[in-house]
This record gives sequence, C-alpha cells and structure tokens, in this order.
Amino acid sequence: MRFVELIEHKKGGGSLTLEEIRWAIDAYLDGKVPDYQMAALLMAIRWRGLTDDETVALTEAMVDSGDRYDLDDLGGALVDKHSTGGVGDKVSLILAPLAAAAGCTVPMVSGRGLGHTGGTLDKLESIPGLRTDLSAAAFRDQLQRLGVAMGAQTATFVPADRRLYALRDVTGTVDDPGLITASILSKKIAEGARALAIDVKVGRGAFFTDIEDARNLADRIVAVAAGSGLSCSAMITDMEQPLGNTVGNALEVAECIDVLRGQGPADLRALTLELAAEMLQLGDLADDHDAALRRVTDCLDSGAAAERFEALVQAQHGDPRVLSDPALLPAAAGHSELCPPQSGYIAQLDARAIGLASVCLRAGRNTQGDDLDPGAGIVLHAKCGDEIDLRTPWATLYHGPAADVDRATELVHAALKISAASPEPRSLIREKRP
Amino acid sequence: MRFVELIEHKKGGGSLTLEEIRWAIDAYLDGKVPDYQMAALLMAIRWRGLTDDETVALTEAMVDSGDRYDLDDLGGALVDKHSTGGVGDKVSLILAPLAAAAGCTVPMVSGRGLGHTGGTLDKLESIPGLRTDLSAAAFRDQLQRLGVAMGAQTATFVPADRRLYALRDVTGTVDDPGLITASILSKKIAEGARALAIDVKVGRGAFFTDIEDARNLADRIVAVAAGSGLSCSAMITDMEQPLGNTVGNALEVAECIDVLRGQGPADLRALTLELAAEMLQLGDLADDHDAALRRVTDCLDSGAAAERFEALVQAQHGDPRVLSDPALLPAAAGHSELCPPQSGYIAQLDARAIGLASVCLRAGRNTQGDDLDPGAGIVLHAKCGDEIDLRTPWATLYHGPAADVDRATELVHAALKISAASPEPRSLIREKRP
Repeated sequence: MRFVELIEHKKGGGSLTLEEIRWAIDAYLDGKVPDYQMAALLMAIRWRGLTDDETVALTEAMVDSGDRYDLDDLGGALVDKHSTGGVGDKVSLILAPLAAAAGCTVPMVSGRGLGHTGGTLDKLESIPGLRTDLSAAAFRDQLQRLGVAMGAQTATFVPADRRLYALRDVTGTVDDPGLITASILSKKIAEGARALAIDVKVGRGAFFTDIEDARNLADRIVAVAAGSGLSCSAMITDMEQPLGNTVGNALEVAECIDVLRGQGPADLRALTLELAAEMLQLGDLADDHDAALRRVTDCLDSGAAAERFEALVQAQHGDPRVLSDPALLPAAAGHSELCPPQSGYIAQLDARAIGLASVCLRAGRNTQGDDLDPGAGIVLHAKCGDEIDLRTPWATLYHGPAADVDRATELVHAALKISAASPEPRSLIREKRP
Repeated sequence: MRFVELIEHKKGGGSLTLEEIRWAIDAYLDGKVPDYQMAALLMAIRWRGLTDDETVALTEAMVDSGDRYDLDDLGGALVDKHSTGGVGDKVSLILAPLAAAAGCTVPMVSGRGLGHTGGTLDKLESIPGLRTDLSAAAFRDQLQRLGVAMGAQTATFVPADRRLYALRDVTGTVDDPGLITASILSKKIAEGARALAIDVKVGRGAFFTDIEDARNLADRIVAVAAGSGLSCSAMITDMEQPLGNTVGNALEVAECIDVLRGQGPADLRALTLELAAEMLQLGDLADDHDAALRRVTDCLDSGAAAERFEALVQAQHGDPRVLSDPALLPAAAGHSELCPPQSGYIAQLDARAIGLASVCLRAGRNTQGDDLDPGAGIVLHAKCGDEIDLRTPWATLYHGPAADVDRATELVHAALKISAASPEPRSLIREKRP
C-alpha cells in the first residue's frame, strides 16, 4: 500500500477501508509514514470528512495503538463522562464521585487545560498532595475499592491520539468532527468504559459557537460510539458564560466542595445532577430519568458524594481535610476587585474572554509547557441576568507576581455587556441527543 | 505571523495576502516552517483553490527564491514554450531551434521525464556528448550567439519549486491548478522569458483527461502570466494517442531530425509549426497567424531550423554529425515486432499505456533515481485511423537486457483498440486560449 494513494483517494471524496485506516495508523506510529504525509491526509479528511464507518475504524485502530484497560471483571456499570471543554467547567470533580456513590464505576482518564479552557487534572492537582499519575494497577485497584478513579494518560495510553493530536494542533486540523470523535472515543474505550455521557458545549466559550455544529458532533459521537459497542448519549449545554462562579484551579475545587456540601451555584449543581442521572440511565441503574435524578439528588444531598470525593482525594494522596477546610487549598498572593462601568443587568458575560483572562492570570496555559498558579483565577459575583451596580465589585481577580493583571482586567471588562432591562434567561441544557 | 493561522485561513476559504504568501515561502525555505505544516497548507490550497492574485504572488515569491536570469539586454523577442507533458511529445527539440531561426530568442530551461511522460532533457542527452548542465554564463552566451539554449535547472534556479514539487509529489497535491501554474510560470520568468506559448495536453496520456480541466488550467496560466508581466497564449492539444510515431529518447531525436529534414510524421510537424507561429506572434515578430505560419514553414523547409539545431548540438558539446547520420545515436540491444490480434482500423491507441510500456523498456523512469536506456522505446508503424493487418507488425519495441519486455508487450497490446470501420479523425489542436 502506498500512503499517497490513500491521500489521493480521500482527497477525491472516497472512503478508506478498515484495513487502510489501520495500516495508516500503524505505519505512522512505526515511523514509516512521515508527518507531512499524515498532515496532508488529515487536511484531506477535514475537507471530505470521515463516514461513521471510517470513524469507527479509526477509533479502533487508535485504541489498539496502546494499552487497553479491561475492567469488565470488576462488574458493575462502567460509565464515564466527557465534556468538549469550556470555561469554569468543573463538573467532573463533583460528577465522578457522585455517580460512583449512586452505583456507577467511573474509570475517568482526563486531560489538562490549554488555551481558554481548563482541564480536570489541573483542577484536581491544586489539592495539596493529590496525584493523578496512577499506574494501571493503582487505577484498577482504586476503581475496585471506591468505584471511581481520576487519572492522567500514561505514556502507553492511546499513543496514536497523542501523536495525531500534536500534529492536528499545528496543521489546522483540530476541528474535524470525525477526528474529534475518534480522539474522544478511543480514550474512553481504552480506559475501559462501557457507557459514556457526552456534554457538548456550545457558545462563546466552547469549541463550537453554532448549535448546528454541536448537534452534528453530538450525533456523530453517539453513532460512532454505538458502532464501537459503547452506550452513549449527548447533551448540548450552554457555554456562552462560564459555568458556576469561579474560573481557576483551586477556586474551582472550592466551588465543587460547596456543591458537594449542598451549596454552590445553581447552574453547576443542576448540570452535574443531570449528567449524573444520564450516567445512571446509561449504566442501566435507573428505570427512567426521574428515578435517576431522584437517586443522584439524594446521593448529593445525603453527603454520600462528598464522602466518596473525600475517599478519592485520600486514595490519590491528596489532603482530605480540604473538604472541611477549603482554606487549605493554595491561594493567590493578591487580588483585585472590579466594579462595572455602569449599573444595570448583565446581558452577556463572554466565557471566552473570561477564559483568556484566566490564562493571563496564569490559571491556564497558552502553550503546553506553561506553569500554572494553582490559586489564581477569577470569581464572578454576578452572572447573566443579575443586577449589578457601579459601586459594588462584580468580579475579583486572584493573581500572583507573574500575572498580567492589566490585560486580564481589560479582558474581563470586555467580557461584560450591561443592559438597562433584565435579559431573557438562557436555558443551560439546550438539547439532549438522541 | 503564525503559519497555522495561514492554514486555518485558507482552510476556511479565505485568500492569503501577497505578504503572507511571500513570508510562507521564505520561512519554509529557511527551515522555519516544517514540511508537515506546508503539506497541510498545500492540501488546504488544493481544497479551496488559489485566486489569480494569490497565484501571481506565489509565482513571484517562488521566482525570488533563487537566481533570475535578466536577458533583456540581449534585445529581441524572448519567447519560450511549455507543454504540460505527454507521450512522444518531442516538439521542443524542433521548436526551439525553429523559433530561433525565425527570429525569436528562446531561453529554454527544461525538466526530465517521470512516470509515463517523457522529458526534453532526457531526449536531448541521448545525443552523444550533449550537455544540458549549462552555467548561467554559458546559457546567456549561447543565447546571444545562437538565439537558443536548452538547459537544465541549476541548484539555485527556483529552489522553492524544487522543494514544493517534491512535497506535492508525496502528499497528493500535484493536481492543483494554482500550484501547477505557479510552478510553470516561476521557472519561465526566472529563465528570462518575456512571452510564453503553452501547450496544454488533454487525453489519456495527459495530466488532464477532461477538456474542461485543461481549459481551466489554460485560462489560469494565461491570466496569471498577464498578472506577472508575461505575454502568454495557450493551445489545448490532443494526447489520446502518442504524438508522432516514436516514444523513447534516441528514437524521438531521430524522428525530430526527420522533421527538421522536411520529413517525419504529419501530426508532429503540424503541431510544431503551429506552436512556432504562436511564439512569433507572442514575440511581435509577425502581424498575424498566417504570416507567422508562412515564416516558420519557410524556416523549416529551407533547412534554417536544422542548421540552428546543429549549431545548438555543437554548442552544447554534442556530436553534430547525428543530423546527417542518425545511426550515430544510441541503439537498443534488441527489438521485437508486434502484430495486431486481428485486421482492421486502429480506433484507439492509449497514450498512457504506451508511455507506461516505454517505462518498462527503461525509456522512462518510475522514480527519479532510475537509470535510462537511451536507445530503448517504441516505434508505432500505424496510428489512429490507419488500417492494420494480422500479418504485419504495427509496433516495434526496442529494449536492452534490463527491460521488462513481457509487461511492455502486454501494455502495448492493451493500448490498441481495433474497429472494422475507419474511425472519425480526431483534431490535433482542440482549442486556442484566449
């Protein structure tokens, strides 16, 4: 087989066979196909698209490029969740222990933040001592004991995804629905999940700003997951403004602890409960949505989810006292308060601008090597629809000496649009698919 | 400027500015942009296309990547010709000295054959002793003395084209009209031509089999040439069957000598005269087509073109006696005759299959490093429309010990379609553009 013929075939709008896709991935990882040929194929794929069958084949070839955790003998419902990424999206930290408390087994392998969106691992690691570099054995053992583990990818975990993602990132081929789908699902299949709830974010702070694009991706993931033997459903949820009131690693952990204690912002609590209910249904642990939602609400309000989170923190070498004393979390050296330029109602709170501001404060990364300030970030005291006034701070920026506070302040100011009248409320959960 | 942003912009259907294109080419040649990013950009260009303005900018950036011959002080009409490549297309060998004899100055920098199509340099170099590695000074000096020089690209001649072409060849991006146009025109501008006759081949043995594609390329080249200050016109000519009766380097030189002596195949003579007349008109050396055609016909029939060819061979260190004694050309070790499977008329003579057969005989190359047998090739004793009979050989294969004669024979047999009735004659010159 000659790789250039695969490129020509895809360029001409043809479909690649399972064998061709598997050969292409293997040859690329073996160093027999240079990056420039793979880059041309990726752009041809971005042009012509992948069929669902091609995407299933790519997903499976990627899974087979590395280790695959087989957790079936653990018994129980192996269910995970994936979000396409947003600003202030700290749902996983509450959701994983909550779903475990409600009966799921949650083998969660997560990533780090890049650009304006945050990452679950960075948030977790702001808990003093907490480690996410779990070996396969430790991951498995923790799942067996606690029903939940939250780890980072090991070097042998879907290496095809790591190689391809790095190439896509510099060749303008990140935004292909088929490639995104295979990247997400290959990792979920490799970690051993058997069912998956997907949260596709849409809005200014998300990868997609157009609901139609989000819907296409959601449907694609659900279809390809089915083709790969994974039960899957998707929600399309709002990411016009940040989720919850905090953006920044330790700040977000503290907010999650609030929710686990029965407090915290209503949007974060509501979305977490909906996703947990979805996971229960996907795991056949509840008869219908209402029963599932009742059960996960009970688990949250009874403190069972908080207990499970505490056990997870302890198992992963973190300081479990943060649950009762969030002051043990790292704090930024300084802070500054922002007042609005006029009184009125918040009509818009651009999640992307807030996310970029948090990067200026070193709560996030511009490039993969950047160091984080775990205590840095932004607290929003008001969100869309809330009334604010000229003399009262509506946001607080937390920052250390290396932060670009001026630029962050500009961005946060620019994120805010004020109207004289109260705006129409936005719905958080836009759609469920299928 | 970040290269990935250029990729994204082109991928989204946008146009690149002159500055962006120049920066991209310079950064690529300086090693600041890796092959994989350029490969992704090339495929995005193949997807979205280049505007004429972008193609002019790319052409000029490519010209400026290396040396540029300034021949304006030589005076006279600096006119060249380019063919998109075909099988048995030996026109340049007659045309260049003919146009020079008729008053043009012809600074011809040519390429080598690859795949089923031949190359002018390979044909020329089958003349014993002849050299095409002319220095810039020798090229210029010969043009001044003879009005014609036929050389190879030097290392510093449009290096951007060499780098880009090598990458396009392995990334499925050869067939983009904008990239083809920039590749052709950058070399013609760099060699110092001020006007250019283009022969766009269409048919089985050509790059394009569809006349619409050929027309698009022809129009694109003419428009971009105008934008780059080059007078240009294009002919679209038939490449369903090979041009003339020979395919193979020394065999083709011998056929060119026949034409220069007033003999040879009618199609080869007619096309050469038309292209020469076009060159005269582009160089403002004739008032109209009829006058131009009369003048070049006179130059051919008077022997003036043959004299000029002889002078060129001598100037480029070849043995000029080949003109009067073609037996001095290299000959293959053996030959075999092919009879048709039935009597009738030749309805089709697939140029591509004949070209591939000539590669099996080592008259052409599969890959750039392949050695050639200068005497190898195919002589077609009959062409489309001719009557053939079962007992009379219609083709002769010339080959040495390294040839795959069986495969070549199969291909030549497969190229032939016989009909009971005489087929409609095909027109050689399909269209002139503009």
